Amino acid sequence: MSGQIDVAIIGVGLVGSSVLRQLATVPALSALRVIALQNSKKTLLAQHGQGLSLQDWKTQLNASPVAALSLEKLVSSLKELEAANQRHIAVIDNTSSDDVASFYPSFLEAGFSVVTPNKKAFSGSLDLFKAIVNAKAKPNGPLTYQESTVGAGLPIIGTLNDLIVTGDKIKKIEGVLSGTMSYIFNEFSPASGSSSKFSDIVRVARENGYTEPHPGDDLSGSDVARKLTILSRLVPELADKLPEGFNSVNTQSLTPSGLAGEQNADNYVKRLPEFDGEFDQLRASAQERKCVLRYVGLIDVEKNIIKAGLESYPADHPFATSLGGSDNIISFTTERYPRPLLVQGAGAGADVTAMGVVADLVRVAERRG
Amino acid sequence: MSGQIDVAIIGVGLVGSSVLRQLATVPALSALRVIALQNSKKTLLAQHGQGLSLQDWKTQLNASPVAALSLEKLVSSLKELEAANQRHIAVIDNTSSDDVASFYPSFLEAGFSVVTPNKKAFSGSLDLFKAIVNAKAKPNGPLTYQESTVGAGLPIIGTLNDLIVTGDKIKKIEGVLSGTMSYIFNEFSPASGSSSKFSDIVRVARENGYTEPHPGDDLSGSDVARKLTILSRLVPELADKLPEGFNSVNTQSLTPSGLAGEQNADNYVKRLPEFDGEFDQLRASAQERKCVLRYVGLIDVEKNIIKAGLESYPADHPFATSLGGSDNIISFTTERYPRPLLVQGAGAGADVTAMGVVADLVRVAERRG
Repeated sequence: MSGQIDVAIIGVGLVGSSVLRQLATVPALSALRVIALQNSKKTLLAQHGQGLSLQDWKTQLNASPVAALSLEKLVSSLKELEAANQRHIAVIDNTSSDDVASFYPSFLEAGFSVVTPNKKAFSGSLDLFKAIVNAKAKPNGPLTYQESTVGAGLPIIGTLNDLIVTGDKIKKIEGVLSGTMSYIFNEFSPASGSSSKFSDIVRVARENGYTEPHPGDDLSGSDVARKLTILSRLVPELADKLPEGFNSVNTQSLTPSGLAGEQNADNYVKRLPEFDGEFDQLRASAQERKCVLRYVGLIDVEKNIIKAGLESYPADHPFATSLGGSDNIISFTTERYPRPLLVQGAGAGADVTAMGVVADLVRVAERRG
Repeated sequence: MSGQIDVAIIGVGLVGSSVLRQLATVPALSALRVIALQNSKKTLLAQHGQGLSLQDWKTQLNASPVAALSLEKLVSSLKELEAANQRHIAVIDNTSSDDVASFYPSFLEAGFSVVTPNKKAFSGSLDLFKAIVNAKAKPNGPLTYQESTVGAGLPIIGTLNDLIVTGDKIKKIEGVLSGTMSYIFNEFSPASGSSSKFSDIVRVARENGYTEPHPGDDLSGSDVARKLTILSRLVPELADKLPEGFNSVNTQSLTPSGLAGEQNADNYVKRLPEFDGEFDQLRASAQERKCVLRYVGLIDVEKNIIKAGLESYPADHPFATSLGGSDNIISFTTERYPRPLLVQGAGAGADVTAMGVVADLVRVAERRG
């Protein structure tokens, strides 16, 4: 890698820490110099001409006398560093914050590239998405990369972009896009059959930390709807289709209607067994047709359909046989790939998400460093 | 895409024609200007400041008064165009020529990037490979991209590079890497069982143009050995392991020993049925263990093994269930992906190979345009 860039990191939780670990330990990445760290409490800025020490960043950030800057003030501080250091700056947003996401146009207008695993900006309103596209639309302008918003480090967005830029016609994108949903249905409806109860699987998944604190946030399907939004906006024919982003996606919630509105997560999990019969029936009906159940996202370009929901697949389909753990799988059917191009692997986890972020950062350095 | 580059294309057969079609028909690619075409007979050079017309390139090339230039003279002509046009030049090698491949260091030393689906240079001697690496090793120097050398347009080399540059440790790379071998064994040993004769499948594959003119050139396994060489050289621990390139790979030929040396393709195919019994036995032995046969390439970094050969896989393994047609599949097992990252899809064909080439060309334009 030839280019040197400066990096500002917002959000230093699990993913952010893993990004910093990769930057600190891989010698080839030394050209990516971290000059700012910010969490909800503190901001740590490097001296002019220097990078932050990545060995003890946590101690330093905690000890920083600077309370977390507003995003406006962060931009001013970064502009100052940019003027002093004369290097292109990339901002990494490792938060899941809507506020940071809606600030991307300002980062880009300030000339900073944006790299992020945060789905919010690219799956929100079409207005925000267009503001982002406009803010970077100049020759040699700043860049945005968001590979980790779908399938973590798996080559999904890059592959879709390559297909489109070379003139392929996307016909269908279909996939198991939520690690949590993948785990739940790999357990509940394996190709070999199962009699496990849906509620038990959800409970155990929650106990192991595989779900959000409130499992209803996974079972709502909104994570899949967000990923579908991000992908569909890359397909020229669909770019304008979802004005309200993921809220415009036809999404099937798996929360039983009798539990809708149950805000208390413990109560939700406690009452879920009341509805096991419904899930048993769905599974039995699929099994009769020698099928399994999977919660999938589907983009059918020709039929103009974007939807997230429960579908059944024959027991010898890759979605049925090949998945395990909380794997994601995605299938692109195109003019050139009538037999689909498939990508599969872990779609969640701090290290694989950070890998996608760091690989994106390398691309920024290659192009703007 | 921001950057504008000039493109010189050597080899305008099936893949080259498809590259030209993509460049001619996709509006977003207009920044990639073709300034030179060369086949074994003719060379066509653009005027200063202009690109060639891509609508009737074939007529123009045939009508060109310039007989095919030596590669040395081609370089001089391109240097002249570069001086006049002030644009970075990328050379595309769509041939399968060893001569063109061994000229890459000279292209790079002249400052031209090289994009290619030709496996020869990257799977040949380690000396040539190192000469290529050295010739581009300067800041903002020319680039090489070769995604289409393995799996055509599938995201294989890009993915492996992303894993490595972000510090992942590659443990195992395993795959069905030859479209022809994939087709033959998907037919001969499907998960559902088969009693087809090996010789019949090879004969039909040849009649349909799925094999090389002499099927022994596929059954030798050398195509797989070449791809393993290309991949293993990207893995730091293995970079120096194959001094003679694919000739150093432990490769199992499927040509029966009784047929070794049969140069005449028709005789080869005519005599192949004499050896069906051997293949039947292999299949029966696999079936007894509920396995299928696949011809795979394997790189085991920990065990220091690089080999190509026939292996058996359980009937529910992705290599057994998920493959069809002449699909390639590749599996990366790494520190971060203990459950492997899989990529699958058509691994041969002019349009998907050209797609990989054009996507690589876009990357050159993004970085050097």
